[in-house]
Amino acid sequence: MKELKEKILKEGMVIEKGEILKVDSFMDHQVDVGLMDRVADDIIDHLREVSLYDKIDKIVTIETSGIVVGTLMALKMDLPMVFARKKIPITLIEPLYSRKIVSPTKMNEVEIIISSRYLSPSDDVYIVDDFLATGATSLALMEIMATSGAKVVGMGAIIENSFLPGRDLLSEKYPDLDLYSSVRISNMDETGLIEFI
Amino acid sequence: MKELKEKILKEGMVIEKGEILKVDSFMDHQVDVGLMDRVADDIIDHLREVSLYDKIDKIVTIETSGIVVGTLMALKMDLPMVFARKKIPITLIEPLYSRKIVSPTKMNEVEIIISSRYLSPSDDVYIVDDFLATGATSLALMEIMATSGAKVVGMGAIIENSFLPGRDLLSEKYPDLDLYSSVRISNMDETGLIEFI
Repeated sequence: MKELKEKILKEGMVIEKGEILKVDSFMDHQVDVGLMDRVADDIIDHLREVSLYDKIDKIVTIETSGIVVGTLMALKMDLPMVFARKKIPITLIEPLYSRKIVSPTKMNEVEIIISSRYLSPSDDVYIVDDFLATGATSLALMEIMATSGAKVVGMGAIIENSFLPGRDLLSEKYPDLDLYSSVRISNMDETGLIEFI
Repeated sequence: MKELKEKILKEGMVIEKGEILKVDSFMDHQVDVGLMDRVADDIIDHLREVSLYDKIDKIVTIETSGIVVGTLMALKMDLPMVFARKKIPITLIEPLYSRKIVSPTKMNEVEIIISSRYLSPSDDVYIVDDFLATGATSLALMEIMATSGAKVVGMGAIIENSFLPGRDLLSEKYPDLDLYSSVRISNMDETGLIEFI
């Protein structure tokens, strides 16, 4: 997606020894909602191309930044959205599914939580998030879906750090899973270099 | 807003000795995005009625659930959105504004954080969140705005717990602030009673 590549080149900043792309001017603190709306369109266009659009009945994402693109996709597709929690709110009193992971951007252990009320074996789910990087979050969500019995139709990300193992780990474990990212970064470093696939 | 009142009566659950309204089937875990889109329209209609619509150049909200309505309002109004953080991500390396509050739904102390890059004295901000209840979050956001020099044009919430002191505290401290909520609850208890203003 050309517009997103240009935005990343203009405003993205590579930090943490080249492992983390800082995009908080347009994605995860201040948000260019118009751009995110066109990203949602881009992912939906892909779903139409691979004939998955009509096979989805729920969008699943994870707090925090995934909620923006998840909201916009759910609105356009007229579907409910569920966002996984990273901390149990006092209101979550039902049984829940959870997996622990180490957060790549916060360096601490976080628990990914979804109430058992909102996932069932009859659900055909599309998972969307802001980044696909190490794959830790995606793999944890896939395991939660498997436990619930919900079927995962595909998985989308706004930005993929393709030099990290997320895509390979997911493809190996779930060879039939449709994986799509609006932009794939093949290489980046702290000198400011950012290259795309 | 009639549709939202009906949804609250049908799916809301009063917990924690009548202080907390659980709305996680349509607002803060699973999300009825279509309904949230109509809530965004409702708040925007209000902004037009009070002639504030054209005076806003940035939407500010706070993670997590505020992001849904913030995204939808920003999209319709063609404005950037900034969502305040409750935990400092590794990517937030610039100076920041922050205030500590006690979270009403998580019972722990949380820090509300906005990067100084995304607030300036030239900003005319509209603050929107999922709930107006004790006012703790809203007051902290108002103090952050004052520190940054940004002007707050008004404040909106999806649901107001009007039996809690939030509105009164805000009105007293900021008498000129436009306060709007799509639904105002005058009374609720654990027997299932929910009454609206």
